[in-house]
Order: sequence, then C-alpha cells, then structure tokens
Amino acid sequence: MECPGQILPAARGVAVMLRRGQAIRIENIFGSQVVDAWALSAEDPLEYASIEHTRSWNSSIFVEKGMALISIRRRPMLTMVADSSPGRHDTQLCPCSAELYQQLNCGGPHRSCTDNFHEALGRLGVTLPFTPASLNLFMNVPIAEDGGVTRVPPVSKAGDSVTLRAEMDVTVVLSACPQDITPINGADHTPRDIGFAVLDG
Amino acid sequence: MECPGQILPAARGVAVMLRRGQAIRIENIFGSQVVDAWALSAEDPLEYASIEHTRSWNSSIFVEKGMALISIRRRPMLTMVADSSPGRHDTQLCPCSAELYQQLNCGGPHRSCTDNFHEALGRLGVTLPFTPASLNLFMNVPIAEDGGVTRVPPVSKAGDSVTLRAEMDVTVVLSACPQDITPINGADHTPRDIGFAVLDG
Repeated sequence: MECPGQILPAARGVAVMLRRGQAIRIENIFGSQVVDAWALSAEDPLEYASIEHTRSWNSSIFVEKGMALISIRRRPMLTMVADSSPGRHDTQLCPCSAELYQQLNCGGPHRSCTDNFHEALGRLGVTLPFTPASLNLFMNVPIAEDGGVTRVPPVSKAGDSVTLRAEMDVTVVLSACPQDITPINGADHTPRDIGFAVLDG
Repeated sequence: MECPGQILPAARGVAVMLRRGQAIRIENIFGSQVVDAWALSAEDPLEYASIEHTRSWNSSIFVEKGMALISIRRRPMLTMVADSSPGRHDTQLCPCSAELYQQLNCGGPHRSCTDNFHEALGRLGVTLPFTPASLNLFMNVPIAEDGGVTRVPPVSKAGDSVTLRAEMDVTVVLSACPQDITPINGADHTPRDIGFAVLDG
C-alpha cells in the first residue's frame, strides 16, 4: 500500500517516521534538486546513519541500489531498493550550514540543510547536539584523480526517484537543499520542490 | 622549542592539548602504522573537526600539506604544515570499533580506534555521546573508478611524519590503529608504536 505522495517545499526539511519494512520514495520532480538525507533509530537518536561506516560496510564511496546505510553501531538502517536516477549520490560533502553561507558572502540569513535537519527533528521532539554527515541524494560531485572535487548540476532527470527501505524503526530526515550560490541544484541555481511517499512493506 | 618526543604504544590512544600556535608532529616510526586523528575545541568539545566540512573547505577528498581540518562550525582547527610521507591520508573510512571487529569474526574483545578515542578523552574528563569521523593518517585506501575502495598497506616509509599546527586551543586525539585482520597496518598485520612530539610555535 502506498500513502498519498507529499511535497517537500524547496529549501525546507521534513522528518518522517518509518516502521521496519516500510519504505520512502523520494522523487526528484524537476530533476535538478539535491536532497540531503539522514536516518536515526526511532529508539535512540544517537544511533544515526554514519556515512563513514556506510562507505566501510559497502566498500564503496557511493551508495547504490542494493546497498545499505549503516548506523554508527554497524547495523543496517535503510537499504536503497530502487534508484531510477544515474546514481553517484554524493557522500563526500557536508550539509550546508549558516556558517557556510556566511563564508559564501550570501549576505544576511540563509536557509540551510543543517538548520532544516534540526528544525525537522525538533518538530518530533528530538534533539541532537551535533549534525551527522548526510547522504546527498542526486548530488553530483565528480572527484578528480588528484582528489579534487567539483560541484556541478545533477545528472538526474525530472521524475527520477530513489526508494529507501527501513531495516529498523527509523526517523528519516530529508532536506530539499537551499543552495542557490553554487550550481549544485541546477545551472539556474534555483532550489525546487521534492516529492516523497511512504510505502508499506 | 620542541618538547621531548613520546611513544604512543601500538593499539593505544592518547589525547594531547595544544594551545593555538603549537603543533604536534606524528612520526610513523616503522612506516606501516595508521593513526586515526581527531580534534576538538578546548572550549567546547562539541566543536569537533568534521571530515565532511574539511573536504568541502579544501575541495579535496584528501588532506594534504597546507590544508586545514575544519570544525563543524566552519573554523580551521589544525593545519597540516608538514608531511614527509607520500600522503593520500584517508578520509573515507570509519574508525574501527568493537562492533566492526565482531563482524570481522575476530572472536572475543578487540581494542579499537573508537574505544581509544573515548578512553583518551575520558582521561581528560571529556565525554562525547558519539564518535566523529576520523582523519586516517598514513592509511592507504585506493578508490576505483566505480567508487569501490580497497584496504592496502601504507605507502609511507619508516620515519615519515606529519605535523599539524593548532589554529585554536584544541584537544588532538590520536589512536595507533589496532587493526590486525586487514593489511591496513602493513602486510604482516601487526600494529606498531607511533611517535609524537609537541612543538611550540
């Protein structure tokens, strides 16, 4: 059974509780929008998806169909069971933050994935004193031979989606990335809405 | 002025407080030993070196001479001011942990970089409810075109060293990695001692 799809407005965040076996499908409605994603155990938010343990578990710097997001305690939290995009979801770069936008000289306040993460969790009454690294869905960060990284528009198409299945009761946090200074959300530097739907197992 | 050098015994951890302007030189005495490294602000341990912000700041997946380790609040904490090794210090993989060794079927308790981190901080009266990603000095993790990673012995030589200068008052935590199942600490799978010395600015 699939619950009705919902819209995550551009530059906003949402926290979604999944029971084990449920899944969340994240749709890149316009094709050009990056989604920062996190997972926390419903029982203990200090058991969070660790991107460095995820790379270790999968022996890969990418998260691809069939791979799992792994907790800091080495337990699978979410499995990527479908991906209609070309993939190469970024695991290298930080979620954007207020301080990052100050350093980009954006002038004045700016929404950020870090703030979206904490605000979305706060609406569920959950607080964390730090910000884990995020899985950056659809984010296109080519890595050169010398280790240099660049920030370029997504290669995904409008309607591409990723589906993550919960391997435990879990809170998934999504942020439709507000970045409008680099071209990471498209050549027109315009953050856009994302679709998501909860699927029962 | 250089304080007398000290030995960090194989498979152990240490926390060293540096004032701004001081530096720590970490010597790979035998050439084959990986050192997991962390940094925390002396004022607030929740301002820790974030490997994902470090990659973002440097636009590089490696930390090389001249690059800084960046805090979760986007402030430089440590700068790598010298590196006599061939570099390519890993930023991809997690510090090893008790759970990881269970999954490697090592049988029974096993020292780990994660436990070394918390034990070393605990000796200074500092506690953190999570384990940040580490900078894995001398650790050789080649990345294939498809994103796959392998764990192979260091390319450093006996006596190679890295020097990190403090850009703020900081607690540096080092762990001489206890990994003896993969060849990450040398083809003979033998964790070894590390040398370190504090250098005044």
